[in-house]
Amino acid sequence: MTVIALLQIDPTVGDIKGNAERISRAASIAHEYGATLAVTPELAMSGYPPRDLLNHSGFVKRCLEQVHELSVDLPLIVGCPIPPETERTRPGNGAVRVIPNRPTRVVTQKQLLPTYDVFDEERYFHSDTKPGILRIVDGQSIGVTICEDAWQHAGLVPNDYPVDPIEQLASFSMEGEALILTVNLSSSPYHAHKQGTRIEVAISAARTLGHPFLLCNQVGGNDDLIFDGRSIVAWPDGKIAQAPAWVEGVMMIDLKSKSAQFVDFKNSEKIGLDIYQHEFESVNTEKDLLEAVTIGLRDYCTKSGLSSVVLGMSGGIDSAVTAAIAARALGPENVVGISMPSRHSSDHSISDAEITAEALGMELLSIPIGSMHDPTEMLLLDEINQGNDIAAENLQSRLRGLLVMGVANARGAMAMATGNKSELAMGYCTLYGDMAGGYAPLGDVWKTEVYALAHMINDEAVENGRKPPISESTLNKPPSAELAPNQIDRDTLPPYEILDEILRLHMEEGLSGEAIAGFTGRDETMIADLLTRFNKNEHKRWQMAPSPRVSARAFGQGWRQPLAARKH
Amino acid sequence: MTVIALLQIDPTVGDIKGNAERISRAASIAHEYGATLAVTPELAMSGYPPRDLLNHSGFVKRCLEQVHELSVDLPLIVGCPIPPETERTRPGNGAVRVIPNRPTRVVTQKQLLPTYDVFDEERYFHSDTKPGILRIVDGQSIGVTICEDAWQHAGLVPNDYPVDPIEQLASFSMEGEALILTVNLSSSPYHAHKQGTRIEVAISAARTLGHPFLLCNQVGGNDDLIFDGRSIVAWPDGKIAQAPAWVEGVMMIDLKSKSAQFVDFKNSEKIGLDIYQHEFESVNTEKDLLEAVTIGLRDYCTKSGLSSVVLGMSGGIDSAVTAAIAARALGPENVVGISMPSRHSSDHSISDAEITAEALGMELLSIPIGSMHDPTEMLLLDEINQGNDIAAENLQSRLRGLLVMGVANARGAMAMATGNKSELAMGYCTLYGDMAGGYAPLGDVWKTEVYALAHMINDEAVENGRKPPISESTLNKPPSAELAPNQIDRDTLPPYEILDEILRLHMEEGLSGEAIAGFTGRDETMIADLLTRFNKNEHKRWQMAPSPRVSARAFGQGWRQPLAARKH
Repeated sequence: MTVIALLQIDPTVGDIKGNAERISRAASIAHEYGATLAVTPELAMSGYPPRDLLNHSGFVKRCLEQVHELSVDLPLIVGCPIPPETERTRPGNGAVRVIPNRPTRVVTQKQLLPTYDVFDEERYFHSDTKPGILRIVDGQSIGVTICEDAWQHAGLVPNDYPVDPIEQLASFSMEGEALILTVNLSSSPYHAHKQGTRIEVAISAARTLGHPFLLCNQVGGNDDLIFDGRSIVAWPDGKIAQAPAWVEGVMMIDLKSKSAQFVDFKNSEKIGLDIYQHEFESVNTEKDLLEAVTIGLRDYCTKSGLSSVVLGMSGGIDSAVTAAIAARALGPENVVGISMPSRHSSDHSISDAEITAEALGMELLSIPIGSMHDPTEMLLLDEINQGNDIAAENLQSRLRGLLVMGVANARGAMAMATGNKSELAMGYCTLYGDMAGGYAPLGDVWKTEVYALAHMINDEAVENGRKPPISESTLNKPPSAELAPNQIDRDTLPPYEILDEILRLHMEEGLSGEAIAGFTGRDETMIADLLTRFNKNEHKRWQMAPSPRVSARAFGQGWRQPLAARKH
Repeated sequence: MTVIALLQIDPTVGDIKGNAERISRAASIAHEYGATLAVTPELAMSGYPPRDLLNHSGFVKRCLEQVHELSVDLPLIVGCPIPPETERTRPGNGAVRVIPNRPTRVVTQKQLLPTYDVFDEERYFHSDTKPGILRIVDGQSIGVTICEDAWQHAGLVPNDYPVDPIEQLASFSMEGEALILTVNLSSSPYHAHKQGTRIEVAISAARTLGHPFLLCNQVGGNDDLIFDGRSIVAWPDGKIAQAPAWVEGVMMIDLKSKSAQFVDFKNSEKIGLDIYQHEFESVNTEKDLLEAVTIGLRDYCTKSGLSSVVLGMSGGIDSAVTAAIAARALGPENVVGISMPSRHSSDHSISDAEITAEALGMELLSIPIGSMHDPTEMLLLDEINQGNDIAAENLQSRLRGLLVMGVANARGAMAMATGNKSELAMGYCTLYGDMAGGYAPLGDVWKTEVYALAHMINDEAVENGRKPPISESTLNKPPSAELAPNQIDRDTLPPYEILDEILRLHMEEGLSGEAIAGFTGRDETMIADLLTRFNKNEHKRWQMAPSPRVSARAFGQGWRQPLAARKH
């Protein structure tokens, strides 16, 4: 029991057979490279998050049956949902032992069920009451925990749980049989700056346990969740090693020599991993975010059976960055942009889109909307003349949404919405217009971060000897919806640096307007007006396309405020 | 302590001050009519469901402060969120005692936190560990429970809880001080056939407790949830009385004479309520459903500050029924229909819409879409000719969606989507086309139920001496999207009787295709094809407008299956 393999794989939610094949393949590599035990991520057999599939008892049963059928050459601990004991209990979030030529056995089920932010596990799972202990060979036992089980110990959960599985294992190891190591099966989603907290969890657990703590994390996207991988080993003395982010592969940990290696699935190449003491490799936050949204889009499309995407390109920064992300995710040959100038479009709105498309090597259609805009406006003339101005502005945006959807439907492609989190929060966007699309790559990215991504994309192009796709003009012009003459965002929104700061404190930290004013020193009335507008536009967020969740708290049912909250 | 008042009110989520006024007003009526104790519904101070407002600690604090400020003439038990004890615990779902000239006191916090179907309470609340006992006057104590607390005892929850608060109270009443009655503060949502189960809960509790059990329920709609009221008193001998459904008012229960009365808010009239033995007044299910969707739409609009609605009227049954519901909810003067014939529209599609609009007394605009349809099709000609036929069909639907939104935006009204649950489930609808709208009154109503509603609406009109709004032609023609020549739903969907049965068994009972085939005797391949299509159209359900939840299980985050589930 000296070489342990962490199978950092990218399962697809619901694809039981495909996930089993992925696990087998990774386990073979582990065996080939001399591992004596391999561990998968949490719920690797179903993919995470399985959500309502767990309500179908047939699905849960099939997952466990598939574990029984796994043929492996080394002992394996597999994350899998466990059928409930009775019809009136929920399934478990389990770890199952598979040993060649011996019956499989459920080792443990997750004790701590996160039910906050993107997690809804109390809804789906029954929790276990004892820690997982697994005897591997004579006299050698290990602790088995599942994701959140290790987080209470480090104090890194929003609400305290009544038990601490790491303490339970430490007591067992002290009083009963000494455990040689503890593993943790994780599906721990990415968000910016999370890497550090995950390492803190691992070091804290290893220190208390007095033995190595090995965390195997899922990688890739499933629906709106994104997993960065970065599986970890931590030793009690604070030494750690970490697998690379955003790639599938096997992390091999040699406990005797205190060394770690990683075998990439793509090239089967084995690389040594650095050992850090307490600190860890610093991450380029923007580069990480770019990888996250790229992989989010890539996996959303490929796992849904979609190979190409269509988007409207206005010459603005959001659509340019979205196009570049799509080209990274699916290849430029699978990305179609549409320039749709109207009477309010500036010249640069067309030329900037052309620069981006050319630099990326993607197709760009041009469909001026005048010939449909004029007769449509005629049909609504009385209504528009007598009514709210917003009707005319939205009309243009919706005509464009309709063309994007038309091209997407004709080509069997997915339309992308290009909006960012700042404007979606303020309702500075049009339902069924620029919000149309099956996925919004920037829907959880603040406008200020969109600029950072643009620079990162340009730098990457230059490094690779290509033309930067985001033009200077796109980067420097004041953001505008171009739905009315000379319109710019600044007319109706504060500068994005200020807007993003206020919204982040409200949405991610839960601060009230008063508290934000106190914290930032900014004008309380301005903040109150912004938050009123935020609440009033809740109905748009109810209908927005899925986005890769990249912030500590994102939009979604979980964070949905009731419409009626506007009275609050 | 002989006359108890149940304040069956309609609070607005987030409107703390407004809810306090409503409670005070109801309590005054209760006092005036001689009540000696009054009880509100669950979370009456915040409205139910408060969802993410509970994550803002300021909101929770303000709710409790508002309870302190209530000025009342009789003892009151108020449902209110309770601030958590530390920053690392969640708030409680509490009952607070208010007695004139004495300090308020938290009596209890909900023990059983439902986390299934429309409920997510583990996400938001900390649970109490002991039952609520409140001494009202010398030697007279009562039990206090909150909604789900009473449901475990009747076995009417999907998963068993480890404790049973009704048994706890019964033990206390046997071993310690005898309780004279137990109250239950509820926000128990409506769904068809639920009335019976709620009565079963009350009778079961009264029987075990050996004293009267009084359940006060919220009435009205908050976002997508609908509450039917129907507050209940049950005696240990199986006698019950029930407040009327769908109206705000005060239910007065005289424990001495075993009688009950109801004072309607609207006319302040006091009516006697019948006392039933075990059985209960039978409910007209269709009439009840009609009230539910009407009140759902009415409260959604009024609580969001919207007074008028716009919808497309095709001459089909869905838009006709939606228009009639809107006329009931908001008055026909606040409903605008738009007839938008295209080259594929039949003559009757226009005349049937006119019959409906005229009978309802609502405005009907006519906007033929040809003049925008032709140039738009020209812009997409190559794409449509070379691509998937669906692009051309969707185009028409989206042009109509755009016009509906245009009129709605111009008039500051809300657009309504007219789709029903059967077609939304199958994806037989167009994103940003007929799915456009802020609310979908029929989004959780099966197509077969839409027909039942149509007959109910016509009967009601005839009873009131008006012309039936749904024409014979609308009722009898085969359902058609009219997006291609001679198209009818039956070309691509099974008959709705069969479709609805299969979908209901899958979505509400969680049965697999195989199990449905076994249960219904229908062809397994046909069922499998339907369920595949159901899964493939998940992305549309992610983006559908809110609907009043009227079925035992509805669409929504809770019941959302991951997109990738299509591989399952």
